[in-house]
Amino acid sequence: MFTRIEVIGSGRVGGAIAGRLRERGLEPVSTGAQLVLVCVPDSAIGEVARSIEPGPWVAHVSGATPLAALDPHVRRFSVHPLQTFTTRRGPEQLDGAWAAVTAEDAEARAAGDELARLLGLRPFDLADDARTLYHAGAVFASNYLVTLHRAATRLFEAAGAPPKALEPLMLRTIENEFELTGPIARRDWATVDAHRRAIHERRPELDELYETLADATLELAT
Amino acid sequence: MFTRIEVIGSGRVGGAIAGRLRERGLEPVSTGAQLVLVCVPDSAIGEVARSIEPGPWVAHVSGATPLAALDPHVRRFSVHPLQTFTTRRGPEQLDGAWAAVTAEDAEARAAGDELARLLGLRPFDLADDARTLYHAGAVFASNYLVTLHRAATRLFEAAGAPPKALEPLMLRTIENEFELTGPIARRDWATVDAHRRAIHERRPELDELYETLADATLELAT
Repeated sequence: MFTRIEVIGSGRVGGAIAGRLRERGLEPVSTGAQLVLVCVPDSAIGEVARSIEPGPWVAHVSGATPLAALDPHVRRFSVHPLQTFTTRRGPEQLDGAWAAVTAEDAEARAAGDELARLLGLRPFDLADDARTLYHAGAVFASNYLVTLHRAATRLFEAAGAPPKALEPLMLRTIENEFELTGPIARRDWATVDAHRRAIHERRPELDELYETLADATLELAT
Repeated sequence: MFTRIEVIGSGRVGGAIAGRLRERGLEPVSTGAQLVLVCVPDSAIGEVARSIEPGPWVAHVSGATPLAALDPHVRRFSVHPLQTFTTRRGPEQLDGAWAAVTAEDAEARAAGDELARLLGLRPFDLADDARTLYHAGAVFASNYLVTLHRAATRLFEAAGAPPKALEPLMLRTIENEFELTGPIARRDWATVDAHRRAIHERRPELDELYETLADATLELAT
């Protein structure tokens, strides 16, 4: 069991993790750690890792960064909380989220799983060479969801409809297990064509986005 | 106050509406209605409307269809519940959803607002000529959200990660008021390039979708 953990970095993720450790009675340490958690921007992980004296476990919390970034350490792993974090909230942001654990042997995997559970995360195994593909999936689910909302908001604003009305629709779409409804599910191409014309007339900057998503919906979701 | 309402059509929306009226003690009628609610597919609204003897209020519940589809009736309006419906659930699907009310005069607007509130919906005004643009916004928010989830699921499956882990991420993205995080928000183009390569290698059918959304994210969401 890890009882002495050092947390390097106090950004969105590092802050939530340090707060969670304190909630567990494990005030982060600055010397004599059994585990050093590197919670810095991806591009800085390598340099920070190289500055750590070999000995303790060393782990990072990045989604797309390979374990090799933790060289020269060999007792190493990664735990990536699959969640979006805001500085406006605290450690409760970790609750209910899953975490990708990447490790090179059974001992490291056990250490990663232990850390994930200590933080309140639900661990799953992820191969080191699959991390980028996994992280791209997370971008679709979170970052691109923001983009859909902003596109829908522009269209609602242009139509004089209140954007706040979009939220119950988006939440129910998730709650209904992503069951596709609407014109593409009905193969109602007259409505799809009407959308194209209306968007082109009022918000032409969304033409290509609408079209690419319509094609993808037909291919993936029906 | 409407006390005698006829509901034509028993699909996803018609079924939920009829069930809600029964919950309110208003068993739908088949003759002598004060209001006839046309809940049939968009392409059938005109024909069904023309078959209704003039006299009562006539309304439809379609998102993109103009009021002219209700010709020759002049006491008319539209109430579109902004929600996705499944046949697996009942009238409770209406709770918390907003509704676009389109009307051509104050009396019709009052009638539309009254019906929306009777159904448990939160009404807002929508101009008849803005309906298509509004409906396209709803497609982005709901149908295209399904598409994002299916794209993310493909990438997770290819990476060996559990797709169910995506849900807490998507829900929190909404809960955090669509605050953008991730590589594009950080202008981390090395990670974006790594995504492109990984997708192209393993799921090239998603190349264009990733790219178009990345461009739109930069334009709309940052």
